[in-house]
Amino acid sequence: MFTCRLDPGSRTPLCDQLYAALRQEILHGAIAPGARMPSKRQLADHLHISTATVEAAYARLTSEGLCESRPRSGMYACAAPETPGRPHGEKPPVRYDFSTGAADAEHFPYATWAKLMREVLSAQDKALLLAGDAQGMPELRAQIAAMLRSLRGIDVPPECVVLGAGTEVLVAALVSLIGRERLFAVEDPGYSRVRRVLVTSGARIAPTPLSGGAIDVRALYVSGAGAAYVTPSHQFPTGEEMSAEQRMALLRWAKETGGYILEDDYDSEFCFSGSPAASLTAMDEGGHVIYMNTFSRTLAPGLRLSFMVLPPPLAAQYRTMHAACSVPGFEQATLCRFMEGGHLERHIARMRVIYRARMQALTQTAQRLSLGEVAPCGGGLHVLLTVGGRTPAQELVPRAEQAGVKLTRLCDHGVMRMGAKAERVVLLGFSGMDEAQIEKGLETLKKAWF
Amino acid sequence: MFTCRLDPGSRTPLCDQLYAALRQEILHGAIAPGARMPSKRQLADHLHISTATVEAAYARLTSEGLCESRPRSGMYACAAPETPGRPHGEKPPVRYDFSTGAADAEHFPYATWAKLMREVLSAQDKALLLAGDAQGMPELRAQIAAMLRSLRGIDVPPECVVLGAGTEVLVAALVSLIGRERLFAVEDPGYSRVRRVLVTSGARIAPTPLSGGAIDVRALYVSGAGAAYVTPSHQFPTGEEMSAEQRMALLRWAKETGGYILEDDYDSEFCFSGSPAASLTAMDEGGHVIYMNTFSRTLAPGLRLSFMVLPPPLAAQYRTMHAACSVPGFEQATLCRFMEGGHLERHIARMRVIYRARMQALTQTAQRLSLGEVAPCGGGLHVLLTVGGRTPAQELVPRAEQAGVKLTRLCDHGVMRMGAKAERVVLLGFSGMDEAQIEKGLETLKKAWF
Repeated sequence: MFTCRLDPGSRTPLCDQLYAALRQEILHGAIAPGARMPSKRQLADHLHISTATVEAAYARLTSEGLCESRPRSGMYACAAPETPGRPHGEKPPVRYDFSTGAADAEHFPYATWAKLMREVLSAQDKALLLAGDAQGMPELRAQIAAMLRSLRGIDVPPECVVLGAGTEVLVAALVSLIGRERLFAVEDPGYSRVRRVLVTSGARIAPTPLSGGAIDVRALYVSGAGAAYVTPSHQFPTGEEMSAEQRMALLRWAKETGGYILEDDYDSEFCFSGSPAASLTAMDEGGHVIYMNTFSRTLAPGLRLSFMVLPPPLAAQYRTMHAACSVPGFEQATLCRFMEGGHLERHIARMRVIYRARMQALTQTAQRLSLGEVAPCGGGLHVLLTVGGRTPAQELVPRAEQAGVKLTRLCDHGVMRMGAKAERVVLLGFSGMDEAQIEKGLETLKKAWF
Repeated sequence: MFTCRLDPGSRTPLCDQLYAALRQEILHGAIAPGARMPSKRQLADHLHISTATVEAAYARLTSEGLCESRPRSGMYACAAPETPGRPHGEKPPVRYDFSTGAADAEHFPYATWAKLMREVLSAQDKALLLAGDAQGMPELRAQIAAMLRSLRGIDVPPECVVLGAGTEVLVAALVSLIGRERLFAVEDPGYSRVRRVLVTSGARIAPTPLSGGAIDVRALYVSGAGAAYVTPSHQFPTGEEMSAEQRMALLRWAKETGGYILEDDYDSEFCFSGSPAASLTAMDEGGHVIYMNTFSRTLAPGLRLSFMVLPPPLAAQYRTMHAACSVPGFEQATLCRFMEGGHLERHIARMRVIYRARMQALTQTAQRLSLGEVAPCGGGLHVLLTVGGRTPAQELVPRAEQAGVKLTRLCDHGVMRMGAKAERVVLLGFSGMDEAQIEKGLETLKKAWF
């Protein structure tokens, strides 16, 4: 059986020591993917520790996707996440990418971006070569504040905007800023990448169930969470929108407990029916909400451009903690000109039309092929499909992969096991393919599954 | 007296609670800069806690530069670090910038960079728009590995190179990677920015004295440090080079204790007499050394380009923990072409000549003006000057500031008080000014001090 030396006299709690030891074994392949892990009781007896300690270590590994609990069977090691760029020997190449992280590279406004970058470089502004403002260029922050006002009705001073090289960098900074000792509630099912960044930043997380499509506010009170990461305009992965009552309850929780709400407003730009609901940030009166968004979806992930809006006291603290902004000066200046010229607004409007057409094509083709039931979605860049037919739920992804189609199941995004219904639900992202490819991809799925 | 509510039943240790409460007060100005803080005994009695708890909280605030101990007087709050871009009402504008963080913006190869960026953008490589490889483009990592081989005799596989948007981002990632529970030894005096990033990333730090110009290895054994951040080729701020014996001792420590050495090889490119000593990374046989360097000094800080080299097991772990690289794709590709074309090598060679001339001008002018004793320096972009004359040590910086000259004293970079001699030593960085400016700057200092 797996064994390791635990030091009861160490400052590091036993469960953290055990977690670290198991993690190493899984990451280095000493515990192979798919291998059954010892039961909690067995391991506790073997190492002379309590089952609660083993349980805590297993829970943390599960939250990081390094092992999974299978009902009535036990705990199993998962494969370490794939390394990009290293082709997996066994898997056929991806021909149709329905994953939700895919990005549209077809419509990037190369000509405009190149022209503006050239202007920036030929201006030879020396300030852009220096470390510059820790929160990002003031002019760019003013543009972002103006965009939030016009698109989302959020009125924030540019002094509260913080630019960063991607959501990972910003979330890690946030953990330091509002305190690693807080318990961070995350939606379950939810966005695994943020879960992972929180964990690697040293925060404890509390995967919190959804209730009526949004994080269960009662559970927040119970867990004693000091922060809650939420996706109100388009819950990931269920796609649901947080209702006005839920928003009020969440804000009340923050006010009563002094907790922070981290509002990830991703995909709010791509609302296809009416306008998106008022953001929590716009409703906040007490500085409890931190707004986050990214240009990864509206422009391209490769630009590494994300931002957040902090309540004024946190913004002041951020300035004392950081000496430089993680986004290059030339790129900040290019984005600033891009926004000043109205190019971003036009680009989003254009992409909205393109994405809406793709979503319609996807929905109609899925219905024509009788693939199953497509959940109506008001926005965002993926839809949910409850797959019909007789293919067993656990075969859906492997068979798709075998046919060269990349996708995930709803239950892949949860920490805790979800109901049987969720097992047949797949996420179909349409940001990475045009209508013809979407159609062919769905036809391929039809053959693979039916 | 300052008061706060401490919760003995909390999971957060009392000293952390006290630290956080005091920190808030200082950052928000409730405890004014320069104000005397309560004595340890007073505060301990007042809050019904032990003096050791108060001492631990004070030590942490001191290490973050938020308060300082004045001998035979007590503990005083410091001003929160200045916000860039917000002019200080009272201080005259900086005319001569001798600070060590300054950068040369005169010689940036705009024409080449702009040409290569244009090529990158017109190639419209879609891969650059996606999140890409978490460690950075493989081609660029190969270029960096080749550079390390030719400049520093370090032989590492490109798979172990990790690119990141600045040292802050990389150090924060390292803390997660090798474990927040380790005690991180840092040189004292040393680089305050790294100290600060370690602290905000949730690591405990052990400011460790120098012995013979390099970190005291005996003190590393005593403190039980699990990692040591060092600047061997050009200790910051003393400028000393780590001797071969010290290097051997440090590597022995790492081997015997399982500790990691974080080797910051900054400024090794600017060695003006002979070639720099072999790096610890090149001497390492057991995967104990993590190499770090930046393009901030060789190119420009505003590009936000830093990198590190991880031992293979850590590199594998890094890949599982990160989904994207924090440096934009377009910028990575531009740097890659810049290096492929030999432009970086030429630029460094050119800057070496320029910087050497500046150092000579600085040394000669300081001698001509009889400002004091200039320490001979084999490389790097600053020199140490022991100021002669009768101006009291604590007046050196204020009088310089009043005359529009920006600089720091050696003792400003230490956590613990240094000897009386260090009080009269100032750092003169010459990366931000040409020879004529350096000369005028020194003449201004002469008038201010003598």
